[in-house]
Amino acid sequence: MKDRFKIAVVGGDKRQELLAELLAADGQDSFLIEDTSGLSRIGEADLTVFPLPACREDGTVAEGLSASGLFLHMRHGSVAAGGRIPAELYGMAEMRGVALFDYTKREEFAIANALATAEGAIGLAILETQGTLQSASCLVIGYGRIGKLLARKLALLGARVTVSARRTADLAWIRADGYTAVQTAGITAEITQFDLVFNTVPAPVLGAEALRKLQPTALVVDLASKPGGVDFAAARELGRRVEWALSLPAKTAPRAAAGYVRDSLYQIMEECT
Amino acid sequence: MKDRFKIAVVGGDKRQELLAELLAADGQDSFLIEDTSGLSRIGEADLTVFPLPACREDGTVAEGLSASGLFLHMRHGSVAAGGRIPAELYGMAEMRGVALFDYTKREEFAIANALATAEGAIGLAILETQGTLQSASCLVIGYGRIGKLLARKLALLGARVTVSARRTADLAWIRADGYTAVQTAGITAEITQFDLVFNTVPAPVLGAEALRKLQPTALVVDLASKPGGVDFAAARELGRRVEWALSLPAKTAPRAAAGYVRDSLYQIMEECT
Amino acid sequence: MKDRFKIAVVGGDKRQELLAELLAADGQDSFLIEDTSGLSRIGEADLTVFPLPACREDGTVAEGLSASGLFLHMRHGSVAAGGRIPAELYGMAEMRGVALFDYTKREEFAIANALATAEGAIGLAILETQGTLQSASCLVIGYGRIGKLLARKLALLGARVTVSARRTADLAWIRADGYTAVQTAGITAEITQFDLVFNTVPAPVLGAEALRKLQPTALVVDLASKPGGVDFAAARELGRRVEWALSLPAKTAPRAAAGYVRDSLYQIMEECT
Amino acid sequence: MKDRFKIAVVGGDKRQELLAELLAADGQDSFLIEDTSGLSRIGEADLTVFPLPACREDGTVAEGLSASGLFLHMRHGSVAAGGRIPAELYGMAEMRGVALFDYTKREEFAIANALATAEGAIGLAILETQGTLQSASCLVIGYGRIGKLLARKLALLGARVTVSARRTADLAWIRADGYTAVQTAGITAEITQFDLVFNTVPAPVLGAEALRKLQPTALVVDLASKPGGVDFAAARELGRRVEWALSLPAKTAPRAAAGYVRDSLYQIMEECT
Repeated sequence: MKDRFKIAVVGGDKRQELLAELLAADGQDSFLIEDTSGLSRIGEADLTVFPLPACREDGTVAEGLSASGLFLHMRHGSVAAGGRIPAELYGMAEMRGVALFDYTKREEFAIANALATAEGAIGLAILETQGTLQSASCLVIGYGRIGKLLARKLALLGARVTVSARRTADLAWIRADGYTAVQTAGITAEITQFDLVFNTVPAPVLGAEALRKLQPTALVVDLASKPGGVDFAAARELGRRVEWALSLPAKTAPRAAAGYVRDSLYQIMEECT
Repeated sequence: MKDRFKIAVVGGDKRQELLAELLAADGQDSFLIEDTSGLSRIGEADLTVFPLPACREDGTVAEGLSASGLFLHMRHGSVAAGGRIPAELYGMAEMRGVALFDYTKREEFAIANALATAEGAIGLAILETQGTLQSASCLVIGYGRIGKLLARKLALLGARVTVSARRTADLAWIRADGYTAVQTAGITAEITQFDLVFNTVPAPVLGAEALRKLQPTALVVDLASKPGGVDFAAARELGRRVEWALSLPAKTAPRAAAGYVRDSLYQIMEECT
Repeated sequence: MKDRFKIAVVGGDKRQELLAELLAADGQDSFLIEDTSGLSRIGEADLTVFPLPACREDGTVAEGLSASGLFLHMRHGSVAAGGRIPAELYGMAEMRGVALFDYTKREEFAIANALATAEGAIGLAILETQGTLQSASCLVIGYGRIGKLLARKLALLGARVTVSARRTADLAWIRADGYTAVQTAGITAEITQFDLVFNTVPAPVLGAEALRKLQPTALVVDLASKPGGVDFAAARELGRRVEWALSLPAKTAPRAAAGYVRDSLYQIMEECT
Repeated sequence: MKDRFKIAVVGGDKRQELLAELLAADGQDSFLIEDTSGLSRIGEADLTVFPLPACREDGTVAEGLSASGLFLHMRHGSVAAGGRIPAELYGMAEMRGVALFDYTKREEFAIANALATAEGAIGLAILETQGTLQSASCLVIGYGRIGKLLARKLALLGARVTVSARRTADLAWIRADGYTAVQTAGITAEITQFDLVFNTVPAPVLGAEALRKLQPTALVVDLASKPGGVDFAAARELGRRVEWALSLPAKTAPRAAAGYVRDSLYQIMEECT
């Protein structure tokens, strides 16, 4: 990295800690702000970094730190960035004269994150099933970023891979990439044959009927954000095994995840200055 | 395939012959029309299939068969299809009341064709270089359909793969897919290190300067359609080895290529009827 | 499976339970013997299966069941099998007229087990390191069964793989298989560059000096049986992260592990009868 | 390379030419001897290199150069090496006080050569069949060096791979490596399903009955040396397509093949001096 900045990293989870560490290793003047005691230093920062997600439902970012309080201390003309930023923060930023960016909306971040997510899902699948991944029968629902990277890794490890999608072009890609293609709408009819089902679609794709037809030993890994794609209540009732694997990168590869944030921050600063 | 049609396959190249064969094997009533002696049967056809490209510069489709002559014999209300159809044919089709489709414009065809192209390029690279592909240093220019499939196959065979692209998102994908990413604009500076260069971009990306810097034993495979991406005159003068590998699927996998046409024809008929 | 047998599966760990289950699913007349209450049924068995390892240091196989006691109840002319059988059991078997086999000594078992071990090691490496496996720099020590399967999976997942071995032919294979080859004796000089080190050699290959040179964030996974290959005391003192991953298949893929035992039992019975 | 030698490279095929070139590029004092005019220089050489095979049935090595004539000119105490050396040459070498080595008998050479052979077979399969390798059904007969490397490359390119072997351990490896395993003795019963058959076993494994059952469009690639494994007469009569792909490395990767010879020569010289 070329330019040197003062960077305030707010919040104390593992990813933010590692982010501060990586920035420092690059020669940046970075410091962690974990509670109100650090607030006074925010005014010095060229860049303030919120965590991912940027704040909780109650508007706090970390121990006793509200988003609005943070903005009050930021320097006019400075830059702020975070992940999954709620709408109201943009208003606060504008009032304060701070340029605010959501790095999770940047494609290069989303792609790198999808890679770590796919890898984490592989790790889970290996450790949480009683069989081997090699020769297991796997269904990947959805052929977006995560679906593409996950299907590939599964196939390379010797699993038999079926991928579902809705668009004709995606189905053609699935075939060209060497997997069996099925329509997402037709999943229920096929589901009996799978040992592992990975969902990447944030929409209700695995309902009670599909879950009932699933083999009892099968594992469902739901990688879709927010509402997920699995009827969890039905799964519980039927005794089906479902892992809701949210924020995998932060759990299974926090240093890599912090690295993706850092790379996006550098790009944001380059575009801003 | 469900419905049965009368299908006239026009032109005598290998792909058209194999197409007629595949259609017949599916239970279709297909027949080849290679010269004027077959013209009389065109009126029976529900579907008339032109070759790829659909016609030559002089307007002929095959031995003594002009596109306009063919349309004159087609039944009003029937369907015609072909590859890379020139604009004037659509006018003829409309006048005759024939629905005309270009299957090369369909994404599922383009993807399947890209697969066979990538595979053919691998075959060429193995047979036409003096080293092994394994541990060879390869550059793939462009990360579209062919670039994606080709880079993957090269890497799986043990080559060291660099891919160039222009868009930030493509560069992020290149990295997530496990290759080295470079800006297409910066190729010339890097080109000395490669044993094999595959171009997939139909724009002048490999000019005289880049070719001069290339190792004399390196091979350039140009997979880009029409104008290609290599300055062929400069390459000849510099004694650089360039293969302009046009229509690879028809050459290295004609039966597969015919199969992709057949699949697209079925989709067209399904959408028409 | 063709022939039907009465099979006593002794011991209550997960693998034995799943083995009894798999045998029953094949139509075999199998029953679990977990304590002395089951002893009376051993006389019926055509085949008695000990666990892996076959017995503990004190000679017991499970709760209150001694190996000698088990043999006393077996039928003359019946067959017994188990994993890592200590020498004294062969004497007991002979006296009793029972044919005793160690399935862990069968090559087909060892190979299948190595596969599940390699996969489990991949799972650990993904979940227990802070970076991604993709682009991580990995060293595999030893190119036997596990080394071969592990190196391959690592490379397919995008890691940069170096393998060490002693024999010239192994080094040639390592190169032909597409990895970087180093002499096992020369590991210490190279070790600084690795994020992950997997040992498969049951001999002291990673001593204090090598551990000292290791990056502090690196993870060592020791897959070698019995004494292992890592100086654990030195590792603890230096604060290096070492996972001694014994019996991975039973932990990360118990159903697959039970399946390998079942397959070997069938082969043993086929050879005996 | 460290030590510098005078090296006479005898015979004028592509591999020998490239070998002389590679040696010169390493700083060796190498020269080609293509006919009797070069004979006088042989006395200077520390090492004389015969081609592969070392000599023809009539005892000549190249244009007018007999093996015995060459030995007469070699210096007492010098070294000679070649590929597939017939027994009588060892006698000549001993009489002349020359240490003679067959590099094709060295395992590191055989492995590297197998790699280039496997890759060449892939190239042939792509270019000489009418379908794509991806999703083709392939049989590899034999799981030695070439079989292992070839099966892997085929699977990575998306083919469905079955491998046949005789030994139980090989069959276990075939399964652990992710392929379908069949007994070589049972090939004939299975052969109908394959689009491509690769033989690596130098014994009559594909007789008239198997060839008759083969699909007419299937391609057989025989990679086995000397007698090969296919009943060629029957194949011709039945109209089956068989490629006898001898010395693939020299044809499809001559520079790599020359490199493997060079590497073996260096090892031989190191062991000799």
